Amino acid sequence: MLKDYVKTAAPEAEELNNELEAAREKLSGYQMKIKEAKLPVMVIFEGWGAAGKGSIIGKVIRDIDPRFFKVRTTTAPTEEEKRYPFLYRYLKDIPEAGKFTFFDSYWMDEITAGRVKKELSDDEYKKRVDSINRTERSLTDNGYLVMKFFFHISKKEQRSRLDELNDSKNTSWRVSKEDYVQNRHYSEYLDVYEQYLSDTDRSSAPWYIIDAKSRKWALLQVLQYLNQGIETALKNHSLAVPILQNTFPLKKVPKLSEISLDDKTVSDEEYKKELDRLQNELSVLHNEIYRRRIPVIIAYEGWDAAGKGGNIKRITSALDPRGFEVHPIASPEPHEKARHFLWRFWTRLPKDGHIAIFDRTWYGRVMVERLEGFCSENDWQRAYNEMNEFEKELHDWGAVVIKFWVQIDNKTQLERFTDRQNTPEKQWKITDEDWRNREKWDLYEQAVNEMIQKTSTAFAPWYVLESNDKKYARIKALKIVTEELRKACKEAAHKKK
Amino acid sequence: MLKDYVKTAAPEAEELNNELEAAREKLSGYQMKIKEAKLPVMVIFEGWGAAGKGSIIGKVIRDIDPRFFKVRTTTAPTEEEKRYPFLYRYLKDIPEAGKFTFFDSYWMDEITAGRVKKELSDDEYKKRVDSINRTERSLTDNGYLVMKFFFHISKKEQRSRLDELNDSKNTSWRVSKEDYVQNRHYSEYLDVYEQYLSDTDRSSAPWYIIDAKSRKWALLQVLQYLNQGIETALKNHSLAVPILQNTFPLKKVPKLSEISLDDKTVSDEEYKKELDRLQNELSVLHNEIYRRRIPVIIAYEGWDAAGKGGNIKRITSALDPRGFEVHPIASPEPHEKARHFLWRFWTRLPKDGHIAIFDRTWYGRVMVERLEGFCSENDWQRAYNEMNEFEKELHDWGAVVIKFWVQIDNKTQLERFTDRQNTPEKQWKITDEDWRNREKWDLYEQAVNEMIQKTSTAFAPWYVLESNDKKYARIKALKIVTEELRKACKEAAHKKK
Repeated sequence: MLKDYVKTAAPEAEELNNELEAAREKLSGYQMKIKEAKLPVMVIFEGWGAAGKGSIIGKVIRDIDPRFFKVRTTTAPTEEEKRYPFLYRYLKDIPEAGKFTFFDSYWMDEITAGRVKKELSDDEYKKRVDSINRTERSLTDNGYLVMKFFFHISKKEQRSRLDELNDSKNTSWRVSKEDYVQNRHYSEYLDVYEQYLSDTDRSSAPWYIIDAKSRKWALLQVLQYLNQGIETALKNHSLAVPILQNTFPLKKVPKLSEISLDDKTVSDEEYKKELDRLQNELSVLHNEIYRRRIPVIIAYEGWDAAGKGGNIKRITSALDPRGFEVHPIASPEPHEKARHFLWRFWTRLPKDGHIAIFDRTWYGRVMVERLEGFCSENDWQRAYNEMNEFEKELHDWGAVVIKFWVQIDNKTQLERFTDRQNTPEKQWKITDEDWRNREKWDLYEQAVNEMIQKTSTAFAPWYVLESNDKKYARIKALKIVTEELRKACKEAAHKKK
Repeated sequence: MLKDYVKTAAPEAEELNNELEAAREKLSGYQMKIKEAKLPVMVIFEGWGAAGKGSIIGKVIRDIDPRFFKVRTTTAPTEEEKRYPFLYRYLKDIPEAGKFTFFDSYWMDEITAGRVKKELSDDEYKKRVDSINRTERSLTDNGYLVMKFFFHISKKEQRSRLDELNDSKNTSWRVSKEDYVQNRHYSEYLDVYEQYLSDTDRSSAPWYIIDAKSRKWALLQVLQYLNQGIETALKNHSLAVPILQNTFPLKKVPKLSEISLDDKTVSDEEYKKELDRLQNELSVLHNEIYRRRIPVIIAYEGWDAAGKGGNIKRITSALDPRGFEVHPIASPEPHEKARHFLWRFWTRLPKDGHIAIFDRTWYGRVMVERLEGFCSENDWQRAYNEMNEFEKELHDWGAVVIKFWVQIDNKTQLERFTDRQNTPEKQWKITDEDWRNREKWDLYEQAVNEMIQKTSTAFAPWYVLESNDKKYARIKALKIVTEELRKACKEAAHKKK
C-alpha cells in the first residue's frame, strides 16, 4: 500500500486555501449531526515519527466544540497495562456515542514496533492482526465510524524534521532516540508498515495514506477523508449489518428441557464434606494461579431465584479477598450504554493472576436486551459471534473462562418467589420486575437455548448447574472451577519447562 | 497509642465462638440496612507485615453478599500514579453509597514507609497528615463511615510468622525482603507508627488497635468494632455536621453588581492582534509546563450564554491536543452521585505536565445543587470549606489553579437566548431549563456572590471575565492564563537552581 502509493498532486495555494475553508466548515457543521445521530467517531493517526500527526490533530479539532472530542496519546504500555489483554488499554478509551476521539497512534504502533524489533513472532503477529481486524469490524458493526490515517513522509524528509525539532529546547523532548533509530532503519520499517497496512485494510475500516510532506495539504486530505467518512456513516447509520457465520468449533449441548433436575441432589452430610474439601483445594489453587499469573473469568447467568448469589459465595469464601472481584451487572449506566455493548466488560477484566466473577454478564445482550427490545434484532443476532470473539480474546490471552447457567424449573422458581414474598428479610430480593419476567418464561427459555447452542465454544463452553437443589449446584460449580484451574496450572507448569 | 496499648483479655474458647457467631450474624444483618441507608463504609486495615490483615479480611467478608463489597490492595505507587497528587490513587477507590470497601492497607503505609526510609521530610510528613485528616473528616462529613484498624503483633511473633510463610512455596511470594527489614528495624517502625497513629486519631475516624496474636480473637475484635461503628453511623446518618470556619486567607473580591461590563470592550483590530500574540505565547508556555511537569487546572463557571464555550476554545486552540483535556460537567451519573461529591473531579485530574479544563465545576454544589435542593443546606454550607481544601491539595501538589467566572448582565443573556431561539443552527444550545434558570437570576446572583466571597483563596482566586463583549473576555482569559503559567514556570526554574 505504501510502496505503490501514488501521490495526488496538491491544489495550487489559493485553491488549497479555499478547499480548506470549505472542508473546515463542513466538519464543523457535522458536529451536531453526529451528536443527534449518536455516532461515535474514532479517528486514528498512525505514521512515521515526526510526520506531523500531533500538529494536524491540533488543527483538525480547532473547529470542534471541546465538549465533543477527546485526544488520546498512546505511549509504550506500563507494567500494569501489560497484565491485561493486548486490546485492553486501547478499548477502554473508545468514544461514547455522538463524540470523537482522536488517537495519536493506536494499536498499530505497538505491533509494528514489536515486529521491527523482532519481539513478536509470526504467530503472535498473525493473532494480533486477527484480533484487530475483528475488533475494528465489531466496532463498526456496532455503529462506530473508524477512520485510519497513515502519515507518510520520505526518509530524507523525516531526517530533516527530526533535526529541526531537536534544535529547539521546547521541542527537543519530542524527539527520542527511537525516532533516529527509525530513520536509520527506514526501509525495514517500510516493509513492516507495508505488511501491516495491507493486513488490516478492510472495508469496515480502510486505511487512508496521507502525503504528509506539506502540512496544509496533509490537513486538507485528512479533513476531506474525514468528512467523506462521516457523510457515509450518517447515511448508513440505521443500516443492518451482515450476520457472520460462526467459525468457532461448537460443543454439542442439550436443551434446557432435556436436563433432569429433581434427581440432582446431595445429602447434607455429603454436601458438608465435599464443600470443605473443594474449598480447601480451591484456596490452594488460588495461590497457584496468582503465582503463575493466570487470569480467571467466571460468568454466572441463570433464572431469577436460581441461587446464583449463594453459589458465588461458596466460591468466593474460599478465595483470598485480595485476588478476586465480583461484578454485579445491572442495566448499563448512561456512559456505558453510550459505548460498544462489551465495553463495560472489557473495562472490568481482571489483571493476570486475578479472578473476576460476573454476576450476570455480556449475555444480557441475547436475553433481556433481545426480549425487551433494548437493542435491534440485528444487534442481538450479531452478538453471538461478537461474544464468541470476545471470549476467544480472553482465551488467547491465557485466561480461564468458565460460564455457568444456573438452572431451575418453573415450579421451583414459583416456590422460591412465594417464599421470598412471604419472608420479611427476603422481600428485598423480589421485585415486580421478577414477576413480570416470570411471565415470559417460555420466551426466555427459547432465548437461553439459542444462546447456549450458539456460544458453547471449545474455549469457553457453558456448564449447566442443576440448582433445584442449591447444594448440588454449589458442589458442581466448585468441582468445575477447581478442575479448570488445576488444568490451567498444569499447562502453565508444562509450558514453563 | 501503640506503646501504651493495653490488651484486653480474650474470652475463653467457647465464649469466643459464641461471640463470634453473634458478631457475624449482626454484621450480616446490617447489610440491607446499609444499603437502605445508602451508607458507604470504608474499612481500612493497617499494621505490621504478616499480622494477618489479608486473612482477617477474608473472614470478615464471608457473610457479606459479594455485590455489596470490594477489596482493594495497595501496593507501591506506579510511575504513572506518581504523576498525580498523593491522595489520587486512594480516593479513586472510595466505595459508593450502600457498599463496603475493605482496604488492605491505605495511605498510612506509604507515609510511614517514607518516614522510616527518611524519604519524607518533617514538613512533607506534616502536610500529608493534614491532607489525610482533612480528607477523612470530609469523607465522614459527607456520610462515609471510615473504620481504621491497626493490626498489632510483637517483634518475635512477626519473625516467626514470616519464617512460616516463607517456608511454603504457595505462600512465600507473600513475604518480601521489606518484611524482614521491618522485622529487624521493629523499634524504628514502632516509633513511626506510634507517631502516625496519634497524629491521625480523630473523632471523625478514630483508630482501633487490634491485638492480632490470636487470629480468632483478632477477628472478633474487628467484627465488634465494625458492628459498633455501623450502628453509630446508621443512627447519625441524617445528622447535620458542624460547619467549619474558613481558615484559608481570602482575597477581597467585589460583588457581581459592582462590576461594570459595558465599558469592557475591545476593537476587532485590537482583538485579532492580541489573540494572535497571546495564543502564540500560550503555545510556547504549554511546551514549557509539559517539560517541567507542572499540572494545570482551569475551572470555568458563568451564566448560561455567557460565552464559556467560545472562551475555552480560544484557550484550547493554542494548545497541543496531546497535553490537555476539556471536561464538560453535567449532572452526575448514578455511580458519581453515589460517592463524595468531589469524587468525579478527583478522578478527572490531569497528570502533571497536562492541562485539564473544566466546563462547569465542583462549584455546582453551591449553585445548582443548592438552589434546586439536590443537596441539604448543611451539605452546601460545608462545601465552601471542602472545595477550598480540595484546591489547597491541588496547589500543594504544585498545580496552577485558575478559576473563571464568566459574567454578563441580565439584559445580555436575554438577547443571546432570543438570538439562539431564532437561529436554527443555534437552537440546540437553548433549552427550557435555561429559561427556567433565568427566572431564578436573583437567587443565582446571590449564590454566586457568596461563592466568590468564600472561595477566593490566595492559592486559587476567582477571576471575573466581563463577557458582554465576548472578545474582551477571551483576551482577558488568555492574559490571565499566560501570566499564571509564566509565573509557575519561572518559579519552577528558580526552584531547580
